[in-house]
Amino acid sequence: MPVSKTELDAALAHADMHMGESLDRLRELVAIKSISTDPAYKAECRRAADWLVTQLAGEGFSASARPTPGHPVVVAHAPTVAGPKVVFYAHYDVQPVDPLALWNTDPFILTEAKQPNGEVHLMGRGTSDDKGQLLTFVEACRALRAATGKLPVNVTLCLEGEEESGGKNLPPFLQSARDELAADVALVCDTDLLDPETPSITTMLRGLVGEEVVITCANKDLHSGIYGNAARNPNQVLAEIIASLRNPDGSVAVAGFYDDVKEVDATTKASWETLGFDGAAFLEDVGLSIPAGEKNRSVLEQTWSRPTCEINGMSGGYTGDGFKTVIPAKASAKISFRLVADMDPDKIRAAFRAHVRARVPADCSVEFHEHGGSPAIAVPTTGKYLQQARAALADEWGRQAALRASGGSIPVAGDFKRILGLDTLLIGFANADDRIHSPNEKYNLKSFQKGIRSWIRILAAFAA
Amino acid sequence: MPVSKTELDAALAHADMHMGESLDRLRELVAIKSISTDPAYKAECRRAADWLVTQLAGEGFSASARPTPGHPVVVAHAPTVAGPKVVFYAHYDVQPVDPLALWNTDPFILTEAKQPNGEVHLMGRGTSDDKGQLLTFVEACRALRAATGKLPVNVTLCLEGEEESGGKNLPPFLQSARDELAADVALVCDTDLLDPETPSITTMLRGLVGEEVVITCANKDLHSGIYGNAARNPNQVLAEIIASLRNPDGSVAVAGFYDDVKEVDATTKASWETLGFDGAAFLEDVGLSIPAGEKNRSVLEQTWSRPTCEINGMSGGYTGDGFKTVIPAKASAKISFRLVADMDPDKIRAAFRAHVRARVPADCSVEFHEHGGSPAIAVPTTGKYLQQARAALADEWGRQAALRASGGSIPVAGDFKRILGLDTLLIGFANADDRIHSPNEKYNLKSFQKGIRSWIRILAAFAA
Repeated sequence: MPVSKTELDAALAHADMHMGESLDRLRELVAIKSISTDPAYKAECRRAADWLVTQLAGEGFSASARPTPGHPVVVAHAPTVAGPKVVFYAHYDVQPVDPLALWNTDPFILTEAKQPNGEVHLMGRGTSDDKGQLLTFVEACRALRAATGKLPVNVTLCLEGEEESGGKNLPPFLQSARDELAADVALVCDTDLLDPETPSITTMLRGLVGEEVVITCANKDLHSGIYGNAARNPNQVLAEIIASLRNPDGSVAVAGFYDDVKEVDATTKASWETLGFDGAAFLEDVGLSIPAGEKNRSVLEQTWSRPTCEINGMSGGYTGDGFKTVIPAKASAKISFRLVADMDPDKIRAAFRAHVRARVPADCSVEFHEHGGSPAIAVPTTGKYLQQARAALADEWGRQAALRASGGSIPVAGDFKRILGLDTLLIGFANADDRIHSPNEKYNLKSFQKGIRSWIRILAAFAA
Repeated sequence: MPVSKTELDAALAHADMHMGESLDRLRELVAIKSISTDPAYKAECRRAADWLVTQLAGEGFSASARPTPGHPVVVAHAPTVAGPKVVFYAHYDVQPVDPLALWNTDPFILTEAKQPNGEVHLMGRGTSDDKGQLLTFVEACRALRAATGKLPVNVTLCLEGEEESGGKNLPPFLQSARDELAADVALVCDTDLLDPETPSITTMLRGLVGEEVVITCANKDLHSGIYGNAARNPNQVLAEIIASLRNPDGSVAVAGFYDDVKEVDATTKASWETLGFDGAAFLEDVGLSIPAGEKNRSVLEQTWSRPTCEINGMSGGYTGDGFKTVIPAKASAKISFRLVADMDPDKIRAAFRAHVRARVPADCSVEFHEHGGSPAIAVPTTGKYLQQARAALADEWGRQAALRASGGSIPVAGDFKRILGLDTLLIGFANADDRIHSPNEKYNLKSFQKGIRSWIRILAAFAA
């Protein structure tokens, strides 16, 4: 159903005029504490799914929260129209908010903070990752329907609640819902702008392998005076294992880790060089100056096209106030690997476990707990929908949309390809300084507003 | 005031006949949650001191709780008699009880647990370290006074409330109370039996240096997808530092660490060989089989006469349920060194800090927090009081008292020597399997009962 210039302008104007109501809806969604990784917030995740169903049903979608062994998946279908079909993915769950003391505002109360440069920051957990981004698409549909009475293409939404907690239940769900999710292209709104003025389409994402390691030495906590030296200390064992994961040159030291890693092709590398990415400024912004990865690689390469091993959490013994002279029985770490194209998550997990096992003393033991695994993805840059979206973004932003990579992981893009045979356009409006996963997460009001306008243009472009 | 055989027997009989009341008093003291390291329990520490003052005043002591910048020190003087003067030290504070889930009984409710071998275990935090041991002496004084109307020697008690939390306030207090604490010998009840049947006098103790290290990398928590590889991870930095503290041969790798460490003299070494200590059984008891310290040293040497470095706590990033792909801004560790004779705590602390500083990347920072420091001590084995105590112990236990070392640290013994010019007799009745500092701490009823009887005999022997 092609959209006329008049209809498009009417939809864009509607979005702008009703921005206050769009923000109110974002406020409501942010207030729901949908922390998926913590079982204590299970009911809040359910509440977020129900809220979305209500909103979408109110906009004419056939919407429901589908049960999974974990949190529900919201699926919503717009009334059928002529033209192609898109399936839009985002997630309604958020990261934990600790350390809470570092937040300047209540993480679950959307707070508008005007900046010296005039930009307004929407403060709160999930404003950027991913509730604000999710709503850019929903609000775009709302504006198109208000202005034209319908959507220009067939739209199905698939809104997940476990993206921040391994997302194990999504692939089987996609498998079970293959027929109703069949589409021409998938859209995912969980990525960044290149910079606040430049839209981007992300065509490469790193994969992820998450592992939790628990080292056990003695069968109980020991007094470090009585047993110190003679009894193996699991903190020491774990530290030695973690230290062994990196070489002095910054590379990952797990045997075979780089076996399947290829260099990025020359065209892509050349296009990245035009993006004006400033590695020194990227680090300086967070108080650092020395790239920690492979010494012969730029910051851009280290984060976009090279795999990593990061210790996300580490714990053992007494960590409260004061001091306790204990040799603990156990120590543990949460360790993740970001993978690049062609690396096999299962192979990396196995190589890591072998690396660890080889370093556990014979009278100690190790347990592993799996926390998700997904391969990296690379989206073809030549498709029709990508070209249409790119043109629509240029219309909105007044400049060419960058084709970029990202160091993050969005496993669903791989799942869409593998299970539904769909290519995914990763289009998002977040900024690198949004502090996602950190205290004081924010989303720029401009991202929200221009994000809504961008989706209006993109959906219209697909109908052309 | 020499004690006749009849008087001694009457005192011993009194102690045995009133054991139930002695246990009730231990029950009251264990119920007071005097965890000195945690500011939340400050009032409970005060309550423990007041309880002791009340008990001692009831036994004719001139007793009071003396203020310090931390928890009070209880000082109590018995009415003056002819003969020598002893000053008895113990501590009324206890270790934290976490992880609480691992306790089989409420740590603050004294629970008598009969064992298959007939022995009764007094379960509870502090039953062994050090409330039960403290009361062996108080109850001995009570029995002597009940049976003879007075104590056979002059007795002053000095009961501290900060032994488990660095004890920084005790040395200045001892200095300020030098006159009233002047004595012929100091007695400390905070050590072990050699085995459940063999009393011992501990003549060597390791010293202690406690340090907390905080590594800061980025100025905020980061997303490991976006920053992974390029941003330095403080968990990795800390793990590499910890790993660098030990050599592959089990020795401590801090430069200069062994500079002042001497071999134990041949006589002492020979006497240790007669003690029948079974290193393999000592480790097997806690589920281990491979000594973790210097490869060419026995378990006894590793724990009694060689210095150690232990990681008592380690923490960084997300350690809750589930997974969070964060690169934290900070990571921290609580690290302690046990020192042997002639090692200087200040020198070791400085060497450690230099070792760490040399390993912190240039764009990261490190902070240190001091948690106590004390040198090792060695008590002469030839003194009159030691010989008298040894004979009294032999009378009670029916076998020679062992002269032993201990890997733990009791800084007060050094303080008594330095500040008051006193030698200390370290006589205790705990067992190696008492799980002090751990869940399910216990004290054998036999330790409590024979401990009381031992002190009755020792005080009588000093009056001979």
